[in-house]
Amino acid sequence: MTQLDRNSLRVTVGDVTRELPTVRVGSVGRVPLVEFIGDSEFTNAAAQAMLPLIPPGTEVLLTVVTNALPLTHEISDRSGLPYVVARKKRRTYMQDPLIQDVPSMTLGVAETLWLDGPHAARLKGKRVTIVQDVVASGGTARALARLVERAGGTVAGYLAAFKQGTSNLPLTYLQELPESL
Amino acid sequence: MTQLDRNSLRVTVGDVTRELPTVRVGSVGRVPLVEFIGDSEFTNAAAQAMLPLIPPGTEVLLTVVTNALPLTHEISDRSGLPYVVARKKRRTYMQDPLIQDVPSMTLGVAETLWLDGPHAARLKGKRVTIVQDVVASGGTARALARLVERAGGTVAGYLAAFKQGTSNLPLTYLQELPESL
Repeated sequence: MTQLDRNSLRVTVGDVTRELPTVRVGSVGRVPLVEFIGDSEFTNAAAQAMLPLIPPGTEVLLTVVTNALPLTHEISDRSGLPYVVARKKRRTYMQDPLIQDVPSMTLGVAETLWLDGPHAARLKGKRVTIVQDVVASGGTARALARLVERAGGTVAGYLAAFKQGTSNLPLTYLQELPESL
Repeated sequence: MTQLDRNSLRVTVGDVTRELPTVRVGSVGRVPLVEFIGDSEFTNAAAQAMLPLIPPGTEVLLTVVTNALPLTHEISDRSGLPYVVARKKRRTYMQDPLIQDVPSMTLGVAETLWLDGPHAARLKGKRVTIVQDVVASGGTARALARLVERAGGTVAGYLAAFKQGTSNLPLTYLQELPESL
């Protein structure tokens, strides 16, 4: 990882190199922006590199819309493990969804996760790994873990492409990104 | 395609068969529910089958979150064409986004699409194909086409896994789904 200046951070995953733009976030300063969406080459390189980091015994992957969606699809495809996706809005078609709040560290506003009943059933009795693109505070990861438990599964571990911050989750990840530049 | 009963519709794409659940929608009756999210095998089969349907001359693919996201990632990966994604919410990091309303036929409530400025720039001067999982009224497809034009690109065509309804878009698709069962 190479910091080019305050506006850009160079990251290499496998044989793919990207210059991540940085964006201003409140008074924190500039933070690097990871975008797997719209970049299938970078997504595939990260998925491939994450395969050996999947916790042993994992039977199902769980993620949440939107940014980690192509990444988790690709890890599922390459590992053969099925994946399940929580949503951030109620969908009209959901049947008996599990509803889980995510306390936000930065804004004090709770976000809500929705897991459709038929998808929750796919976690029951399974060892489930939480997959995310970037783990910062760990609040979303903890909310996903709570969904696993409420669905009758057990958490096998936490897997992310990037760690950015000081969460004390037992997380496996490819690289650590600076919190601000 | 085989209608098993009012609660299920069997669909085969390539060598993958799925029984789509149906969900009640207002007074319309039951409509089949296509879910590529959480199903990498079905996603891959659809992406592979859609490759020959990509309009000639296409240089970039454009889709919108969320349901078609893994599908478009996979079509991008297999075709080598880059893809761009419009969002349905403003993101804090967006720079000079294009903002486009989608008139809704069913509810009379407008949805809004957001295309980040750097992503809009990737459409400029390009022949762009709109990619969706399901095209029903065509309202979202038309809003995406408008984004292409406003970004300085031209629409090469419209590609969907399924057509469901009577839009008069020049759409290429794999199969037609019944509007209600």
